[in-house]
Amino acid sequence: MSNTELDLDGQETTNWEDLFSQNAKEAQSSAIRELLDLVARPEIISLAGGLPGRETLPLSETNKALSHYAEENKKKILQYCSTDGLLKLREYLAEKMKEYGINAEPGNILPTSGSQQALDLIGKTFLDRADTLISSAPTYTGAIQAFKFFGANFLTVNLDKERGMEVEAIPDLLEQYNAKFIYVLPNFHNPAGVTLAKERRFKLAQIAADNGIFIVEDDPYGELRYKGDNITPILPLHKENVLYLSTFSKTLAPGLRLGWITAPKKVIQKLIQVKQGTDLCTPALTQSIASYICNKEGLMEKRIKKISEIYQGKRETILSALEERMPKEISWTTPKGGLFLWASLPKDKDSKELFDLAQEEYNVAFVYGSAFYPNKDVSNEFRLNFSYPSKDEIREGIQRLAEATKAYLNKN
Amino acid sequence: MSNTELDLDGQETTNWEDLFSQNAKEAQSSAIRELLDLVARPEIISLAGGLPGRETLPLSETNKALSHYAEENKKKILQYCSTDGLLKLREYLAEKMKEYGINAEPGNILPTSGSQQALDLIGKTFLDRADTLISSAPTYTGAIQAFKFFGANFLTVNLDKERGMEVEAIPDLLEQYNAKFIYVLPNFHNPAGVTLAKERRFKLAQIAADNGIFIVEDDPYGELRYKGDNITPILPLHKENVLYLSTFSKTLAPGLRLGWITAPKKVIQKLIQVKQGTDLCTPALTQSIASYICNKEGLMEKRIKKISEIYQGKRETILSALEERMPKEISWTTPKGGLFLWASLPKDKDSKELFDLAQEEYNVAFVYGSAFYPNKDVSNEFRLNFSYPSKDEIREGIQRLAEATKAYLNKN
Repeated sequence: MSNTELDLDGQETTNWEDLFSQNAKEAQSSAIRELLDLVARPEIISLAGGLPGRETLPLSETNKALSHYAEENKKKILQYCSTDGLLKLREYLAEKMKEYGINAEPGNILPTSGSQQALDLIGKTFLDRADTLISSAPTYTGAIQAFKFFGANFLTVNLDKERGMEVEAIPDLLEQYNAKFIYVLPNFHNPAGVTLAKERRFKLAQIAADNGIFIVEDDPYGELRYKGDNITPILPLHKENVLYLSTFSKTLAPGLRLGWITAPKKVIQKLIQVKQGTDLCTPALTQSIASYICNKEGLMEKRIKKISEIYQGKRETILSALEERMPKEISWTTPKGGLFLWASLPKDKDSKELFDLAQEEYNVAFVYGSAFYPNKDVSNEFRLNFSYPSKDEIREGIQRLAEATKAYLNKN
Repeated sequence: MSNTELDLDGQETTNWEDLFSQNAKEAQSSAIRELLDLVARPEIISLAGGLPGRETLPLSETNKALSHYAEENKKKILQYCSTDGLLKLREYLAEKMKEYGINAEPGNILPTSGSQQALDLIGKTFLDRADTLISSAPTYTGAIQAFKFFGANFLTVNLDKERGMEVEAIPDLLEQYNAKFIYVLPNFHNPAGVTLAKERRFKLAQIAADNGIFIVEDDPYGELRYKGDNITPILPLHKENVLYLSTFSKTLAPGLRLGWITAPKKVIQKLIQVKQGTDLCTPALTQSIASYICNKEGLMEKRIKKISEIYQGKRETILSALEERMPKEISWTTPKGGLFLWASLPKDKDSKELFDLAQEEYNVAFVYGSAFYPNKDVSNEFRLNFSYPSKDEIREGIQRLAEATKAYLNKN
């Protein structure tokens, strides 16, 4: 073969950059993905990722689920599944959504290949180039990447560190621009850890209703509350006009890549059509494992309780360590749940510079703030994760970070 | 909550159709997906889907893989994975690709969430609205759906039932149109079962080289050959200018949703970037299961040999049954591998009409030909699957189909 005259060994005749689609040409990597590769060195203590703690991952339950199917010879879990998803899982999720005050049916639920796919499907289904959407700044980096891919512009409102997204600023934006939707992280915001106050949720629903606009409510952490009482999601406040997203990544395992969308049936039907061409279906295997675990009476409740206890302990640890070690110029949010808190350097400083110093010389990593801003490249803020590291790693990590911060502030 | 004045119970204020993106507005469901729902009635014998036979699915191996990880407490299989995919799996695949005469490295391989995702990523990465690509007609319906979503036009050349895609017609098309790429199914074509002749592969590589155009080579069935010798893929003939796709759906299990792309590193890097926003990563769980099975010395070879024997038997069964039962007006292809054959009614007939009659009155289903044509709505051809049904079901299914066909031809 290698000797025929048609063998084109080594001839690169294609100039790939010229061939990429407009969207792909403009696509940027997620700063977080690149940063996680950078800080994977064993000597680094990472407060960067958004990973669940190792001790929370249900390896034995997953194994039991599969043994169960193997014993019953249920080979369906290895076949194609319909694009709409496993009925038993959708039934469980519809029932679960009732706790949130809405009458969801299985036809209101679409299981997705992680909630990142939910964001991608929403982008594919709703966004044309130069469309506009509204979000807080900062906001979830995965949403920035998914929606920007389709050429969307982000209009942003500030994020208040006590009461969340400043929704009061939205009507002015809507007078100037036609926005497609409002993207909101109601609980334990990624990156900021802050929760949208109850009255702001009502206000947001009212603003959306007044302007005939829909809401994308992204709620991966809502079940992981360690302090205070649950607050109503926005979904029941603006029922037919909310696409509600959540995921099993934090309550079961990210390695399953399993999330879901709750939405009006007309939207679900279109999303299913779009998903067909995207990946045919979410794996029957991962849906079956989740369905087995979810349908075991009380098992998810027990897991969520246990995970919350573990993370509550880690939260206390990081808050004490910050209090004890950090120079007084640094402030941070006090999250009532979730995986993250959001720290601030003095306003004129750049957390990317601190990041470089911290990971190169102090062997500690976090995510610098600009990764979470759709429209700016510099931020004095940064995100700290407390779900993945052990308590000892948290204490040691914050000690190193405090030293790095002091060194950075002295030099700058 | 349900009594507050802001509760918008039942008020549907959003006109969803108006909000969909241009691409989503024009999106169509795959005829096959809808048809599979239609023919899922228990009394139906389905020769429609493209499912592997139940007897080939590796439930015990999957279970063993998971027990292995559980014993070693390898919780990494439940965590996030990097977007580029599991290194051990990419190493295996790179090694495997060497059999095809190219020096692939792990950096040339991207695991995807089924090969449908590979098609979607290629669409996202290369296709702008009104771009053009070249394929055979008929061609794989999943590719039609994935590529058309991005607004691409299909230019088609005929599919010769003995020697595959009529590549000789491509230069004329390329004189008239700027095509982005040529999409080709080299082995045991879906739907037609036909294999692209060796000299046509060389010719196709030459045409692509002469015109500075790349090739998307989609090869899900290449390893399932029951007659004759393997023919070189197009990949080594046009090395740096081929994106080669394959999948574990037929050799392991579709329920894992695991495929891969082999391509130049520049392309893989861009595809990784695009995949980040699409689903972050393919599940660590499914990649780990595949990697465990693939890295067991000789296990995949044994599986492929066994699957090929099973399908070879079913192929003989369907060919004999057709020979024995079908009216003489019907012809069909004789595939040397894969899962399908392609039958033809007389030219003036419509296989959709036969389908309606067959499934409604004779309890047998297949896929009518128009599902596989990017640019036409009527076809006298239809696809028959022989991998999923048992031999008894094949015999009974063909008997029913023969009766339906006779009735249809008598009436029309």
